[in-house]
Amino acid sequence: MFSGPLTESIVGKAVDKGILDINVTDFRQFTTDKHHHVDDTPYGGGAGMLLMPQPIFDAMDHVEQEAGDRGRVILLDPAGVPFTEHVAEDFSKESHLTFICGHYEGYDERIRHLVTDEVSLGDYVLTGGELGAMVMIDATVRLIPDVLGNTDSAPGDSFSNGLLEYPQYTRPADFRGMKVPEVLTNGNHQLIDQWRETESLRRTYQRRPDLLDNAELTVAQRRLLADVIDEETRG
Amino acid sequence: MFSGPLTESIVGKAVDKGILDINVTDFRQFTTDKHHHVDDTPYGGGAGMLLMPQPIFDAMDHVEQEAGDRGRVILLDPAGVPFTEHVAEDFSKESHLTFICGHYEGYDERIRHLVTDEVSLGDYVLTGGELGAMVMIDATVRLIPDVLGNTDSAPGDSFSNGLLEYPQYTRPADFRGMKVPEVLTNGNHQLIDQWRETESLRRTYQRRPDLLDNAELTVAQRRLLADVIDEETRG
Repeated sequence: MFSGPLTESIVGKAVDKGILDINVTDFRQFTTDKHHHVDDTPYGGGAGMLLMPQPIFDAMDHVEQEAGDRGRVILLDPAGVPFTEHVAEDFSKESHLTFICGHYEGYDERIRHLVTDEVSLGDYVLTGGELGAMVMIDATVRLIPDVLGNTDSAPGDSFSNGLLEYPQYTRPADFRGMKVPEVLTNGNHQLIDQWRETESLRRTYQRRPDLLDNAELTVAQRRLLADVIDEETRG
Repeated sequence: MFSGPLTESIVGKAVDKGILDINVTDFRQFTTDKHHHVDDTPYGGGAGMLLMPQPIFDAMDHVEQEAGDRGRVILLDPAGVPFTEHVAEDFSKESHLTFICGHYEGYDERIRHLVTDEVSLGDYVLTGGELGAMVMIDATVRLIPDVLGNTDSAPGDSFSNGLLEYPQYTRPADFRGMKVPEVLTNGNHQLIDQWRETESLRRTYQRRPDLLDNAELTVAQRRLLADVIDEETRG
């Protein structure tokens, strides 16, 4: 499950460079049930199977023995705090993270006692926690220094300054009749910067006005935003 | 990249059962650049490389030829509408979906002309679109009829009724001193149902009160919620 996304990717390159290690612990190996089950039916009845506490607790004891500590222990749960760029930045400063992933409908409530962070990827349900953990690992690892090379680095990234990114264009200047905005091709860098700042504010205002509430805007940005709002409301 | 998550999973089982097909189209095979590049530097300057429009447009023409249509064309973008269970339900009713995924900092703005849906996985940035597409495929496929078996099906899932799920417990009744709530073990199904409804409302109220604004609650649920709020505010 983990092999492709964690090796054929920037995360894989970071492992190759020795910047981080990734270990997968299979909690099925820690079951004490004679049939090697890790799940059982819910108390009180109902459909579905739940992950039992014992294999997870014992697997976590093993992680602690192997690594010296468990680090922060992250459970993917729709009831958790939303995963955001800010959470990824926070995770990227830790020396050790453990993600609990299960391919199950649910898990025994007592597993939460092991956990330092309950995090939700978004308001949707996945068949298991593995993909969610890989998403969080990817978003986190790219923020570790030296992981992204110059060609990957992303100073204009959405959210890096609390705003959505401005539109970007590359060659050709005219593709199937669709042209690059002239301001980007005439070499006036002051105008280019102003266009980009304006379009970043415009896109954020149009699509995610909620982000503007928390963005730290400069005086110049506030002035540009006022112009954008004026233009947009006039239609 | 796609092999593990799309084969070693419930999505893989659904493909094996013939419920759906997944095809990966490598747009690198459609480059007309003599060096087989698919990216180039941004007009107006700046760090990073952008995905050029030509390989993507030609790859989409190919998809249309092969499949008869493109279906809905989904671009993962932080500026898109948030992916939610509701979007997954909407996608699950389509006969054909195309996800555009790039391992790039950004893409040429004109690529948006190909797209029917711009969707964001959450307020964070990934190194590429592949993981995001796999998350959306997973969340969507599990909602297609016959994909989940009885043991996987999840009537109490978070979001299926607009609320977070109630706590669940399985064997043993006492694990390392942590006990299952008595109400779940004494066999009174009316009390169990009421406990579950109350705890689902409590968890939603405590952690995601925003969900209560849009949840369609019955009169009985409203009464339980009033009790929960009363209990919680008294401390």
